[in-house]
Amino acid sequence: MPRWKPDARARLQEAALALFDEWGFDHTSVEEIADRAGLTKRTFFRHFSDKREVLFGGGDKADEPFVTSVRAAPAAAGALDAVSYGLNALAARFDEEGEQAARRFRIVRASPQLWERQLIKFASLAEAVARALRGRGVGDPAAILAAESGITTLRVASDRWVADTKTKPLRQLVAEALVELRAVASEGPRATEPRGGMPTSPGAPTTGRSGDC
Amino acid sequence: MPRWKPDARARLQEAALALFDEWGFDHTSVEEIADRAGLTKRTFFRHFSDKREVLFGGGDKADEPFVTSVRAAPAAAGALDAVSYGLNALAARFDEEGEQAARRFRIVRASPQLWERQLIKFASLAEAVARALRGRGVGDPAAILAAESGITTLRVASDRWVADTKTKPLRQLVAEALVELRAVASEGPRATEPRGGMPTSPGAPTTGRSGDC
Repeated sequence: MPRWKPDARARLQEAALALFDEWGFDHTSVEEIADRAGLTKRTFFRHFSDKREVLFGGGDKADEPFVTSVRAAPAAAGALDAVSYGLNALAARFDEEGEQAARRFRIVRASPQLWERQLIKFASLAEAVARALRGRGVGDPAAILAAESGITTLRVASDRWVADTKTKPLRQLVAEALVELRAVASEGPRATEPRGGMPTSPGAPTTGRSGDC
Repeated sequence: MPRWKPDARARLQEAALALFDEWGFDHTSVEEIADRAGLTKRTFFRHFSDKREVLFGGGDKADEPFVTSVRAAPAAAGALDAVSYGLNALAARFDEEGEQAARRFRIVRASPQLWERQLIKFASLAEAVARALRGRGVGDPAAILAAESGITTLRVASDRWVADTKTKPLRQLVAEALVELRAVASEGPRATEPRGGMPTSPGAPTTGRSGDC
């Protein structure tokens, strides 16, 4: 299919992802990436500080649409509901980018070193989302619980999406994972106490003995 | 108060925690730990491979009561309910250990480097718990969602606990955080569809526009 002629940065990115996919991240050198792109190592280092930056280079900018959408969610939206607006905004971006975003995820998932870096990024995203929720008047621990639950949802949906980007858009998988999360949380003994209430005595198991749902 | 005479390993641990607390993890050397314990560097290295191991030395053994209790939960328990048995078992251990466990948490939390290591440990614990849930016949993504939600609950409860171990045992804080998690997840539009149902069209926001709870 016809394509616009990509600039050096995009060519390097494409070459890097192709090689990471083929040989694995650890077994790909900057020199090989530059070679594949038909460019020099020097050009590579003009665009990226190292090969990891090809994958994480968007930095925290990728988080912005998430946090902005949480802040902009309707005033009446609950904590997790507000988070779902953020999830939706982020997923929409990945859907737009399509297969290249999925490939990046797959490469990161396949390397323990990269996956650790990703876990740290997820944790800092959760903190940013929790801050946005507090700005909406959500208290703690609801803010951090809703933010972390949102990230969990995103991870589960992403795992499904990268395995098959064709059948369902990430946005839809995120919506489905959120429904699943609500189902998981509402199963078994449910909270009837007010927030912060004491459900069980310290000595008792956290919840009732039988799945009395 | 009268104390049993601690062995070398326990003395080194106590000295290390005291120094990490006072000076920070990064600014404490193995030599200083050994000095404080009235022992030699050589003795330190007989017990620990490095100073990080003083904090993480329990390795994955600490996860065993969690996973074992998830497996042993009553057959009728739902996914998150089964996880709550695991949380309870782990929290009971930390409650027993008391202030020293809390101090370890505080030190890990205060160092970005250690906190990253902890995040990785949490992720591997979540995977172990998800496997235990699958062993109980829980499908995906419910297994991973319930496991990750359990870890989120543990993190939130631990943060409260390390700030004040006297007022409430960790077990109680975990129970409360679980109630909060269920409350957060049940707020706003709730799932009425069967598992895996499609709640919204791909183009629509993940949940309804108004907090119609």
